[in-house]
Amino acid sequence: MIERVKGTRDFLPEEMAKRRWVFERIREVFERYNFKEILTPVMEYTKLFELRSGEEVVKQLYAFKDKGGRDVSLRPDMTSSVARLYVNQFQNAPKPIKWYYIANMFRYEEPQSGRYREFWQAGVELIGSDKVEADAEVISLFVESYLSVGLKDFTVNIGDRVLLDEFAKMLGVKDDIGLMRIIDKKDKLTQEEFIGELKKFGLDDAGVEKVLSLVEIKGKPSEVLPKAEELFKSEKAKEEIKRLYELVDLLDAYEVSSWVMIDLGIARGFDYYTSVVFEAIAPNDLGIGSIGGGGRYDNLIEVFGGRPTPATGFAIGIERLIPILEWKGLIPEIDLSPDVYVVPVGDTKREAISIASRLRREGIKAEVELMGRKLRKALDYANRIKAKATIIVGRKDLERGVVTIRDMESGEQREVKVEEVVGEVKRFLRN
Amino acid sequence: MIERVKGTRDFLPEEMAKRRWVFERIREVFERYNFKEILTPVMEYTKLFELRSGEEVVKQLYAFKDKGGRDVSLRPDMTSSVARLYVNQFQNAPKPIKWYYIANMFRYEEPQSGRYREFWQAGVELIGSDKVEADAEVISLFVESYLSVGLKDFTVNIGDRVLLDEFAKMLGVKDDIGLMRIIDKKDKLTQEEFIGELKKFGLDDAGVEKVLSLVEIKGKPSEVLPKAEELFKSEKAKEEIKRLYELVDLLDAYEVSSWVMIDLGIARGFDYYTSVVFEAIAPNDLGIGSIGGGGRYDNLIEVFGGRPTPATGFAIGIERLIPILEWKGLIPEIDLSPDVYVVPVGDTKREAISIASRLRREGIKAEVELMGRKLRKALDYANRIKAKATIIVGRKDLERGVVTIRDMESGEQREVKVEEVVGEVKRFLRN
Repeated sequence: MIERVKGTRDFLPEEMAKRRWVFERIREVFERYNFKEILTPVMEYTKLFELRSGEEVVKQLYAFKDKGGRDVSLRPDMTSSVARLYVNQFQNAPKPIKWYYIANMFRYEEPQSGRYREFWQAGVELIGSDKVEADAEVISLFVESYLSVGLKDFTVNIGDRVLLDEFAKMLGVKDDIGLMRIIDKKDKLTQEEFIGELKKFGLDDAGVEKVLSLVEIKGKPSEVLPKAEELFKSEKAKEEIKRLYELVDLLDAYEVSSWVMIDLGIARGFDYYTSVVFEAIAPNDLGIGSIGGGGRYDNLIEVFGGRPTPATGFAIGIERLIPILEWKGLIPEIDLSPDVYVVPVGDTKREAISIASRLRREGIKAEVELMGRKLRKALDYANRIKAKATIIVGRKDLERGVVTIRDMESGEQREVKVEEVVGEVKRFLRN
Repeated sequence: MIERVKGTRDFLPEEMAKRRWVFERIREVFERYNFKEILTPVMEYTKLFELRSGEEVVKQLYAFKDKGGRDVSLRPDMTSSVARLYVNQFQNAPKPIKWYYIANMFRYEEPQSGRYREFWQAGVELIGSDKVEADAEVISLFVESYLSVGLKDFTVNIGDRVLLDEFAKMLGVKDDIGLMRIIDKKDKLTQEEFIGELKKFGLDDAGVEKVLSLVEIKGKPSEVLPKAEELFKSEKAKEEIKRLYELVDLLDAYEVSSWVMIDLGIARGFDYYTSVVFEAIAPNDLGIGSIGGGGRYDNLIEVFGGRPTPATGFAIGIERLIPILEWKGLIPEIDLSPDVYVVPVGDTKREAISIASRLRREGIKAEVELMGRKLRKALDYANRIKAKATIIVGRKDLERGVVTIRDMESGEQREVKVEEVVGEVKRFLRN
C-alpha cells in the first residue's frame, strides 16, 4: 500500500466544498476591487527564487533538474512568478496592474499545525504605483477578504522595513537583515531568550534597550505612531512615519481601520520587502499564527531584470485560515447529497436511465443505481447517500405509465405519470 | 531577464476568464451526475506511477528526490492518485464512489499544438461497479461535458481492450502490449508505414490482413458490431461484444448515442485499461487529436495493494478542448472591465475612497485612481480600462454635496448627491 507524500493532503468532497466556498467569497471581493485573475506555471527556473534571496525560502525549495538538465523549482509563493511575468510581458502596459491568484505553493518545511508542504494561497499583486493609496487599497482588500468569509476577530499588524533599516543604522548595526530576523521571531521567544539573542548578535545594553522600546511600538496607530516619532530622528524615518500616518488615514476612509494596528517589530520573512509590511492574526486555540501577510516590494522587479517598478501585495494562507473558520463555525454546512436517486426494479434500466437523464438536463442532481441493487438494498443506500427522494421504476408500473416517488424523509410514496416526473420532482424539491 | 520554463504557460486575465467559464460548465454537469469533487497532492511517491506501468508515462515523469531523500514525482494524470486515495481510505465505503477533479498534471514531452508540460484535466472516476451501467454513466457524462461547453461536432470512439487481447491471441502474438502500441498509433502513420511496422513486429501477410480488418471495425455501432461478431470466435470475445451491444443500448437511453462510434483500433496509451476504452475527437484545423479519453481499469486498485475493485473513468484535456472552442467561437466574450472608476480631483482622496468602498460593498466592481492621475489623464485611463462610468470627486462639488458621474460611452455627465451615489450607479448600470 502506498501512502501519500509526507506533509501533503488529500481533500475529500466535504473539505473541497468548504474550500470552494472560501475561495468563492474571497474571489468575489478581489473582483469587486477590480483585481483580475492570472495563473503562472507551478515550475519556474530555480534562479528566479535564488535571485530574490530570502534565505529561508531557498533552503525550503523543491528544486530539481528536469529531463533536459534545467534547474527548476516548484514555486514557494506566487510573487516571484508574477514579477517575472510582469517583466516578460507587461512593462509597457497601463498602470497599475492589479492581479490576483488562488493557487498551490510548495515548501519543504516540517509539517505542523496549519503548515503543509503543498499549500494554497489567495493573493493579489498591485504593480506600478508607489503611492500610499496603493498600499491602502491592498491593505483594505486584505481586511475585507477576511470579512468576506465571516471572520471578524482578527487584527492586521503593520510594520515598516524603512523604519527597521533606519533603526539598524541608529544602532550602528551593519547586518540589518540579521537584526530583522531576530526581531521577527520575538513572539516565539521569551523576553530573556530574546535579550540573549540580541546580545549574542553583538548589541550592548543600550542597544538592547533600544530594541525593547522599538518592539513596544505596538498598538493603535493614534497611540503608538507618536512614540515612533520620538524614537526616530532621521529625515528618512520622519518621512516614512508621515507616510504611515497617511496610510492609516486612508484606511479610515476605507472603513477598515478598526482592524488595523501598528507593530514596528514585524519584518515578515521575505528579504524583498522595502517599506510597509503587514500580517493578519486571528486569536485561536489551534496554535496557528499569522493567517496571511504582505507588503511593499519596490526593488524586486529590477532584481528580475525589469525597469525599476514599485509594487505591493499580499497572500492569504488558506490552510491556516480554514481551520480557524471551522473552529469558529463560520463555514456553512454545504449539502452534497443528491436530489433524487432513480432505481430500476427488474428489466427497467433503460427507462430509469432515461428518467435520470431528463432530470439532470433540468439541472436536478440525480443519482441512478449502478450496482444492480434490488429495491430494499437500494432504499438503504438512498438513506446512506441522503437522497431527498427515490424514484422507483417498476415494469408493471411502467405498463400503466407511472413510476413511484418516495420522499426519503417522511417515507411517503406516491405514483406519478412518467411524462410528468420532471415537474413533480421540481415541485417536491421546492417544498 | 528570466523566462518561464519551456513548455509551460502563463494564463492572463482574459484566458483565465475563459478557462473558468469552461471549468464551471463542466463542473455543473459533473455535479448533476452526482460526482463529488476531490483533490490529491501534486506530488506522489514515484513508485505509484512505476507500479502502474504505462511505459510512455514513466519515461515522461517529472521525477526527483526531495530534501528527505524520497523519490517523488509530479502527477502525470489523476487516476493513480485517486486509486491510491481509494486504497488508503475508501475500501469500506458504500459503492460506487463517484469523484471528479479539475487539476493540473505534468509530463515531460515535446511541446506541440495543444500539448504542454503542465496541463489541466477535468475528469471523473467511478469506483466499485463492474456493471455496464457504470460504463454507460461515465461515457454519457463524457459526451454531456462537451455538450455543456457548446461543442456539438465531435465523436466518442469506443474500443475494447478485451477484444484487442483476444485478437492478439488469435494471431498467436505474445507481446500483446507491443501490438496494441502499433495499432494505437495507426492514425499517425500512412497505410504503408502501418503495414511496415506490423511486419517489423513479426506478423505474416495473413496476420497483417487480420489487423487491417480489425481496424476497419470502425463506424456506427449497429453497422460495425456485426462485423466484430464475424471476426471473433472465442467465448470471451463473444461476451465482450454482447457487453458492447448493451452499452450502446444504454447510451441510447441516455440520448447520447448519436455521438458514439465504435473503433476497435483504439487502445489508449495507458497499460492499465482492461475493457472498454474511449476517446473524443472533434474535427479541427489546429492539428489537435484526441480532446479526452478514458476507459475501464479493473486491475489498477489491486496493483496498488487494494482488494480487487472495478473502476472506470475519463479525463478531458483542457488545453486541447479550449483552442477548439475558441476556433469555433463557442466561448462567450467575458466582460472584465470595471463598472465604475472613481477619480479624486484635488485633495479628495479620502472621499473618493469612501465612495469606491461603498460601491464595492454593494457588489459593484469599482476601480479607484491609485497613480495620482489628474482628471484628463484619468479620463484617458478610464477609456483604456473600459470603465462604464467615471465618478469625478472634486472639492468644490463636495462642498455642495455632489459628485459628477460621467457615462464613458456617451460622454454625458451629470451631478448626483454624494449620499445617492450608490443608488444612481446601480440605476446607471441597469440601463
